[in-house]
Amino acid sequence: MKKTLLFLVSFVITVAVAVLSCLYSDKAEDKTECTIEDGLIRLAEPERAPVQTSMLGFAAEPIENVRVGIIGLGMRGKGFAKRLTIIEGAEVVALCDLSRKEVRDTQKQIEAAGGKPADEYIGSDAWKELCQREDIDLVYIVTPWLLHTPMAVYAMEHGKHVAIEVPAAMTVEECWQLVDTSERTRKHCMMLENCIYDHFELTTLNMAQHGLFGEIIHGEGGYIHNLDEFWDQYHNNWRLKYNQKHRGDVYATHGLGPICQAMNIHRGDRMTYLVSMDTDSWVGKSLAKKQLLSSEFANGDHTSTLIRTYNGKTIELQHNVYTPRPYDRLYQLTGTKGFANKYPVQGILLSQETASSSGAIADHENLNSHRFLPEEDFKALMEKYRHPIQLELMEKAKKVGGHGGMDFIMDSRLIYCLRNGLPLDQDVYDAAEWSCIGELTAISIEHNSMPVAVPDFTRGEWDKIKGLTFAK
Amino acid sequence: MKKTLLFLVSFVITVAVAVLSCLYSDKAEDKTECTIEDGLIRLAEPERAPVQTSMLGFAAEPIENVRVGIIGLGMRGKGFAKRLTIIEGAEVVALCDLSRKEVRDTQKQIEAAGGKPADEYIGSDAWKELCQREDIDLVYIVTPWLLHTPMAVYAMEHGKHVAIEVPAAMTVEECWQLVDTSERTRKHCMMLENCIYDHFELTTLNMAQHGLFGEIIHGEGGYIHNLDEFWDQYHNNWRLKYNQKHRGDVYATHGLGPICQAMNIHRGDRMTYLVSMDTDSWVGKSLAKKQLLSSEFANGDHTSTLIRTYNGKTIELQHNVYTPRPYDRLYQLTGTKGFANKYPVQGILLSQETASSSGAIADHENLNSHRFLPEEDFKALMEKYRHPIQLELMEKAKKVGGHGGMDFIMDSRLIYCLRNGLPLDQDVYDAAEWSCIGELTAISIEHNSMPVAVPDFTRGEWDKIKGLTFAK
Repeated sequence: MKKTLLFLVSFVITVAVAVLSCLYSDKAEDKTECTIEDGLIRLAEPERAPVQTSMLGFAAEPIENVRVGIIGLGMRGKGFAKRLTIIEGAEVVALCDLSRKEVRDTQKQIEAAGGKPADEYIGSDAWKELCQREDIDLVYIVTPWLLHTPMAVYAMEHGKHVAIEVPAAMTVEECWQLVDTSERTRKHCMMLENCIYDHFELTTLNMAQHGLFGEIIHGEGGYIHNLDEFWDQYHNNWRLKYNQKHRGDVYATHGLGPICQAMNIHRGDRMTYLVSMDTDSWVGKSLAKKQLLSSEFANGDHTSTLIRTYNGKTIELQHNVYTPRPYDRLYQLTGTKGFANKYPVQGILLSQETASSSGAIADHENLNSHRFLPEEDFKALMEKYRHPIQLELMEKAKKVGGHGGMDFIMDSRLIYCLRNGLPLDQDVYDAAEWSCIGELTAISIEHNSMPVAVPDFTRGEWDKIKGLTFAK
Repeated sequence: MKKTLLFLVSFVITVAVAVLSCLYSDKAEDKTECTIEDGLIRLAEPERAPVQTSMLGFAAEPIENVRVGIIGLGMRGKGFAKRLTIIEGAEVVALCDLSRKEVRDTQKQIEAAGGKPADEYIGSDAWKELCQREDIDLVYIVTPWLLHTPMAVYAMEHGKHVAIEVPAAMTVEECWQLVDTSERTRKHCMMLENCIYDHFELTTLNMAQHGLFGEIIHGEGGYIHNLDEFWDQYHNNWRLKYNQKHRGDVYATHGLGPICQAMNIHRGDRMTYLVSMDTDSWVGKSLAKKQLLSSEFANGDHTSTLIRTYNGKTIELQHNVYTPRPYDRLYQLTGTKGFANKYPVQGILLSQETASSSGAIADHENLNSHRFLPEEDFKALMEKYRHPIQLELMEKAKKVGGHGGMDFIMDSRLIYCLRNGLPLDQDVYDAAEWSCIGELTAISIEHNSMPVAVPDFTRGEWDKIKGLTFAK
């Protein structure tokens, strides 16, 4: 009775409002159409142009020596330059920044790592010249958020593969630009989501793929990082200014990326809709007052999001870069047979059944389906399920003097896949799916947390590849 | 531009659908009207009848010796009987259960605790006779969920104060029945939410009331408890059968209660709307197959809920009684100046400012706004902010041979307040607010997580009392 009546209401609403459409955009000039169906806000999903084809499983021709240009040489950019100099088969040939000093400082890091001086591009339009060069294979984009997509599109249009810092795009429209440009130009468009390569994430991904957690039905991720001491490190305070103008989970990829990989998003499942809710701004407003001399601040101090998948699973995301809390990306996998939790303490719990099959549990009598594995068993399990790509890279890292950290693994994997003509670990659909959360959550929040459909950037091919693999 | 256009759409939708109404109910015979406004599902909120007056701050005439009848003598019921026998000024005078054995076992516990034998009521209608007695002041209702409200209403109608196990009510309609009956009969209707008296919750509530966390902007609570080994302890499998038929967070009060107290819900703020999302059922379905010989199971394995308050704060709730995970009630307070976290490890973080004012931090140089307090400072702080009612009860507990646990504090507080003619720590509006979550989340889930308004059970008086106090 209940269901019938409520369904009836849903149906009437659908009929009543399905014809309504709204023009939606950050900028008045590029409006995205959206409709409301079944109480769900749905943004228009553009059809694939005839000149485009899917980038699923895409592999480019092998590149023996990967010549890299880096745009943006803040703290992150310098790190990339240094690591790429160390990594076999990569060469940093061009550096670009607004500031000559940053370029020079980066040159010093390259020199210290044993590399040759790179060509220098300085000034606000210099990045275009860098992209126009014929002798560059890959452009790293490590600039403020709003420049990511315009630069990536330009670089791909000029025949370059791109690696973009997170988030790759700031609007759904930009997500489509990345997808469409990559599909048309046949160039890789990878987001530099490094957290998927962190030790606990990689190891538990490996466990998940070996079935230790059973069916993973719920995942949590987040970015809880009090940026109080860090705001002024962003050139001209761009990050605080962005947050000042935008509600929603504007920095979702570190939390979402590893969860999507463990849950095989667009490799057998897909995110269908989300709801998001934020608090008012307290700390954000006081920052705006002090640092931006403004009483306005849009971004809520704490933003929470729930996402449902086609296969009936859920993902929770949180964003809070304001209040005093320990650093926390949540990272939690809830499975039908096991559970993994990263913060504030790492722990794994397995059912008797999967503990036996894992072969790493010393004392089965000691197992308790209500407690994390004892320290010793936990360590043994983590060792046994160390991810193959981490093991391999740790060996390499030792030889070249780098370290086994997640950034080193990420850069190494990217170069390795390009050199060997392999699909990348993160494709353009990952970049779009993980980046679209910012705008979708803002839309939900601005509508009393109404559900918003997540676009299918694969255009119907999310079930074609069965399960995530890292190419070898 | 964006906001204007979206507002326009919201407005058009409002106009289009505000006239629609739906009949909503679990049972066809008592339909609750609901409408959709601003994309929000809103259940009808009945007006207060002229014979009723608010129970906010209500205190009954002091009762020197509180004569108690207990209905339902499962594991929880026996515990209440034993504790009430020990507690000064309380006397268990009547026991009721379906089973003679349970009554006899309870008598033994009372005898062991030094009490006199209670009168016995055995059989399915015997509870009514118990409620009809003139010489009982307070009825404890410790029966399966669906009997809570009918029994409580009957007991209040017969002049008894009631204490009801969680949840006090299973539908919004039942919540209104409790509120209306309590307001009309001028009888206390307290839910036995014991988790508000747990050590960490009480202590951090005390810290919150002393301003240590600044403004509490986000709270989390939940009930994550793998009931695998416990299902058969529920007479005739009533709990699994209930979950089989209901989606939503059907057991929200342990998680929500302590958070609502810390956030002064209906004492200066109120919950305005919620969205909820569940996973499909995997473990639940396999339980149904084994234990109920059915392939149907409505309750999702993991259910997540976001609630927004009038003052722009948020609450997150989780429910999962199926998958292998460590016991977890989440219990987390995020404040503008501090943070408290209970699971899987207790931790508190304070800003420099509040750490100084708390007067319990040994080494201020050691403070780090990104890390939990060091163990020693944490312990000192927990000791310094021990809640007065806990301190007092611990003294009493030592004398009478009881323990300082949360159930003992709860029962003692209830008896103390009744004996002294004081308002109770949890009033009927708490019972309704914490219990209504089950049905509201089900409605949200059944509508693609659409937002659902939380009724104001105080009927506009949620801002009248400023802040929670425990009467002394």
